[in-house]
Amino acid sequence: MRTQVGIIGAGPAGLMLAQLLHLQGIDSIIIERKPREDIEGTVKAGVLEQFTVDLLNEIGVGDRMMREGHFHDGIELQFSGKRHRIDLRGLTGGQRITVYPQHEVIIDLVNARFNTGRDIIFNVSEVSLHDVDTKEPKIRFKQNGETHEIQCDFIAGCDGFHGPSRLAIPDSIRKEHLHLYAHGWLGILTDAKQANPELIYSNHDRGFALLSTRTSTLQRHYISVDYHDDIANWSDDRIWSELHARTAMDGWTLPDGPINSKNIVQMRSYVLETMNYGRLFIAGDAAHTVPPTGAKGLNLAASDIKILATGLAEFYKSGSEDILDRYAEIALRRIWKAERFSYWMTSMLHRNPNHDSFERNIQLTELDYVCTSVAGSKTLAENYVGLPIQWENKSLIETK
Amino acid sequence: MRTQVGIIGAGPAGLMLAQLLHLQGIDSIIIERKPREDIEGTVKAGVLEQFTVDLLNEIGVGDRMMREGHFHDGIELQFSGKRHRIDLRGLTGGQRITVYPQHEVIIDLVNARFNTGRDIIFNVSEVSLHDVDTKEPKIRFKQNGETHEIQCDFIAGCDGFHGPSRLAIPDSIRKEHLHLYAHGWLGILTDAKQANPELIYSNHDRGFALLSTRTSTLQRHYISVDYHDDIANWSDDRIWSELHARTAMDGWTLPDGPINSKNIVQMRSYVLETMNYGRLFIAGDAAHTVPPTGAKGLNLAASDIKILATGLAEFYKSGSEDILDRYAEIALRRIWKAERFSYWMTSMLHRNPNHDSFERNIQLTELDYVCTSVAGSKTLAENYVGLPIQWENKSLIETK
Repeated sequence: MRTQVGIIGAGPAGLMLAQLLHLQGIDSIIIERKPREDIEGTVKAGVLEQFTVDLLNEIGVGDRMMREGHFHDGIELQFSGKRHRIDLRGLTGGQRITVYPQHEVIIDLVNARFNTGRDIIFNVSEVSLHDVDTKEPKIRFKQNGETHEIQCDFIAGCDGFHGPSRLAIPDSIRKEHLHLYAHGWLGILTDAKQANPELIYSNHDRGFALLSTRTSTLQRHYISVDYHDDIANWSDDRIWSELHARTAMDGWTLPDGPINSKNIVQMRSYVLETMNYGRLFIAGDAAHTVPPTGAKGLNLAASDIKILATGLAEFYKSGSEDILDRYAEIALRRIWKAERFSYWMTSMLHRNPNHDSFERNIQLTELDYVCTSVAGSKTLAENYVGLPIQWENKSLIETK
Repeated sequence: MRTQVGIIGAGPAGLMLAQLLHLQGIDSIIIERKPREDIEGTVKAGVLEQFTVDLLNEIGVGDRMMREGHFHDGIELQFSGKRHRIDLRGLTGGQRITVYPQHEVIIDLVNARFNTGRDIIFNVSEVSLHDVDTKEPKIRFKQNGETHEIQCDFIAGCDGFHGPSRLAIPDSIRKEHLHLYAHGWLGILTDAKQANPELIYSNHDRGFALLSTRTSTLQRHYISVDYHDDIANWSDDRIWSELHARTAMDGWTLPDGPINSKNIVQMRSYVLETMNYGRLFIAGDAAHTVPPTGAKGLNLAASDIKILATGLAEFYKSGSEDILDRYAEIALRRIWKAERFSYWMTSMLHRNPNHDSFERNIQLTELDYVCTSVAGSKTLAENYVGLPIQWENKSLIETK
């Protein structure tokens, strides 16, 4: 097989890239380890920045999102027995977030891909990358026991944190940063009524909680737990009791219901600095992980892809590799900002067992400051709705 | 002896209080452990918020400060080989800071006190507080071997972190929060030319440095060191070498000169929540310590005193104890905000030996964000020039 851009992974990053390339008349082949039903059926949260919504609309896959997504103009922060609303829209000159689950984005992207007449090769195994530091990189993989090879101009590694793409960069060159948190998130899906029209983040003496929504009858809630904890220790009753305690407000009761699924995930931050090696470009979760507190995962994939697709389009149009050469630099400016925001939100909202009483008070004072200073509120709001891509290394400050 | 308000300590807090009370026709006696020459001769930094400048002018001791002080419209943050200016004045609608050393403030306040015809009792020892939970509290002390007693309506404990006032609050009632940092600051006074018209804070791979100024020929510079370190390990050459390295910029050289004095102090944060017990009110450094990174020490003393003097004036005018009863609550709102700011500045500007490479990058990204986002810059600027006293527990947000 031969293509212009070989794409490893049919997650949001790979699928968005394929679509953007198609619109520029650039050919691609996508390979994916899982079957279609799996990538479309794994229920995942989705808080989309305006940037991501605009991109999905631009590539023609936004219709259902605009019909079925929920538009949120704010979020609520709860601490010291009170709730404070951060008016995202008012504080950012009209920007808001769209709640539309990630697997729905994937369903729309897969449909769009097939509508272009181009294929996705599912159920592949033993994926390996070759000659990535030459102009003739290759991807090999097996499907139904048979080995295949794709000859490409470029390879896009969009295969998530555990994929093989990143490992094709030699250890001696690969530069990366990993940070593990003591916190885990215990997440549930429940058939219950909406707790609140907007997301509620709570920093309670008992620990963190997040109330989020999927539909009017399906809710996604989280509590922080020790990530070593076994989900078997958490009966539905114990989970509800903790959720009720951490989000309690006078005169308000969290609606509960049957729990459909529950699991514990560790909080982790990861950044791959070497996002480009030869003709290999790494994008999305393969290049970075954020704790979900900042709701940035899918949105960083979108901006990586926007930059990469722009660079590839420029290359095929004019032969210039200017943007491709600066892909990592441009992408990392936004990635580090989002990593900082996610780290800050995580630090501000979670109890830290190593904190002394002074630091606990500082945490609550920081929440108070963020909720009561215009500038403080804006720092949260402008990051939550998403900072712009900085194509050039210029200041974000335009006016004072 | 008998007075209305017995003041323990002739630092900025005690002296400002005496002056404010005098202007309301309220009598006070000040006692001070040290001789006058000591309190006037101990050279200390002074970065004054507009609030403090206004207060000193209001009580008639601002003339020399307005003549000799330096008005700074901004500060510089240095990291990753670049300097970024934070335009305090532009970002806060015209507020700025005044650099005027604390011992000069004290000289002016002592003069003003003597001009009122009232005394300061210097060189006292064995200070003790009695019956503070009654309406007839007393201060006992020795001077020249003789024991004296002051009968008061109220006692103001303005005797610094190591004074006896705070300890007059029973252990079972006293609530306090202490946080110690791994960092110490090695400070020097040097006969050298000004490094820069405005303060420079540097977060360098080798550690923190601060370049500040007293006069055109006397400078105060700092580097962070392990606070356990012995000043004997720091020759003048070694200090200059480190200062040069941590503040180096292409095409710019830090002016050096003979070092007049050098010492190492530990960074520490402390908050006394129980700022009021019976007829005893604790103010200034006796109630809180901040690391000097936020330049808040003297300014918090000023706001404590403003609140306390307002409460005492109300009491003597109308008999109402409304403000006195809320003294701690009102003062602590501002104190915690300043503690948060100082903790944040300290965390953002110092290397942390426990940080992994991810967290080091987060620190540099935070500096980048603060310097390149209007909202981020404003959060630094509005705290640096000083947040207002919140007499009522209302939001600081007035407009969006």
